[in-house]
Amino acid sequence: MSGRLYGLGVGPGDPELLTLKALRLLQTAPVVAYPAPETGASFARGIVAQWLDRGQREIAICFPMRPGPPPEAIYDEAAARLSAVLDKSEDIAFLCQGDPLFYGSFAGIYLRLASRYPVSVVPGVSSLTACAAAAGLPLAQRDAMISVVPATLAEDALTGKLAESEVAAVIKIGRHFAKLRRVLDRLGLLDMAVYVERATLPNQRVAPLREIDAAEVPYFAMALIARAEMRR
Amino acid sequence: MSGRLYGLGVGPGDPELLTLKALRLLQTAPVVAYPAPETGASFARGIVAQWLDRGQREIAICFPMRPGPPPEAIYDEAAARLSAVLDKSEDIAFLCQGDPLFYGSFAGIYLRLASRYPVSVVPGVSSLTACAAAAGLPLAQRDAMISVVPATLAEDALTGKLAESEVAAVIKIGRHFAKLRRVLDRLGLLDMAVYVERATLPNQRVAPLREIDAAEVPYFAMALIARAEMRR
Repeated sequence: MSGRLYGLGVGPGDPELLTLKALRLLQTAPVVAYPAPETGASFARGIVAQWLDRGQREIAICFPMRPGPPPEAIYDEAAARLSAVLDKSEDIAFLCQGDPLFYGSFAGIYLRLASRYPVSVVPGVSSLTACAAAAGLPLAQRDAMISVVPATLAEDALTGKLAESEVAAVIKIGRHFAKLRRVLDRLGLLDMAVYVERATLPNQRVAPLREIDAAEVPYFAMALIARAEMRR
Repeated sequence: MSGRLYGLGVGPGDPELLTLKALRLLQTAPVVAYPAPETGASFARGIVAQWLDRGQREIAICFPMRPGPPPEAIYDEAAARLSAVLDKSEDIAFLCQGDPLFYGSFAGIYLRLASRYPVSVVPGVSSLTACAAAAGLPLAQRDAMISVVPATLAEDALTGKLAESEVAAVIKIGRHFAKLRRVLDRLGLLDMAVYVERATLPNQRVAPLREIDAAEVPYFAMALIARAEMRR
């Protein structure tokens, strides 16, 4: 019998936003895996570092932090490394910042392994609702529609998507900030845009998007844009 | 000094999907409030019932379970009841199924009280990611866009929204199932639609939407529609 792969959502950053279920599975799995940059610490691992005190074996999967999707080869290699563990009947807790299936790198692992091994996904608090909580902004009420839009889209596509959105969460801002700001300005939405950076972490920042300097914007920043009627 | 209102996301249904933070605040607040139907049990209260053992005082806010938005008067009255507690310097833990600002009744409370009292929102696991985990379906990868679309929209509007969505989560299905099915069929999306009901509860159900009988669909059902390229 092979081991089971658990995709654990560990939430947006505050360790206290871990679920009871993720904590239990994290503490009982003999092997803990997580995405990591080429240099520096893994964000997902950092969230749960205080609970990695039970001699769990760790597997860091290196994803280069360059723009664009990581090469398929990285997912193939990661899947092979995890397979070798599962084949030895060991369970793996794969740490996912936010939620495992809401963007992020777990989907590429999941799609390669779910047909061959037992896999359980434990949902987590996503950046979407964490940013809304930080901003104090109801994402949606009643029959409103929410659009999650990556800032990485081309300017025309981004303009089209935001023009037709009632409530929009623009993710992956980083170096796309200047383009996003132009689009919002053109659509008359700039004054409705709230900027949230590092939601739930000690250095969380919430400000009107209009006041943000493009040079300072990290990848993990989000803009929430709610048309006036949603904000009462 | 007035008390503080905590909007606590208690997750989609499985008590183990409560966050550590929500559990701590729930156990320390002297007063616990929650939405409740006119008859029967409160779903949000049921999720955390095992931790309501510390003599917390309870306030049930009755929301009639009829279609459409509850009358503004219900929110006004609820806000007044909570104000009376906060004015006595008592903190309130307001339980929200899923996440407090992702649909649901907390927004109406929040918008009435946040300017007059200290309010903290603790994000929770939303039905969106809980349903994706139940279905084993990556919601989005890379530059994909996600649309959250209420099934309560008129048929034309629903058709338009789903026609242009890459990944759609259709919420609040209930008595709108037959309309949703017609729309999906017309758009050629029926075979890509996964139906999820009562995600994370013991009676969770996941099935191809095509196989679902309209007569059985509860309000808390969701359809996830990912175009083929997302599913590999």
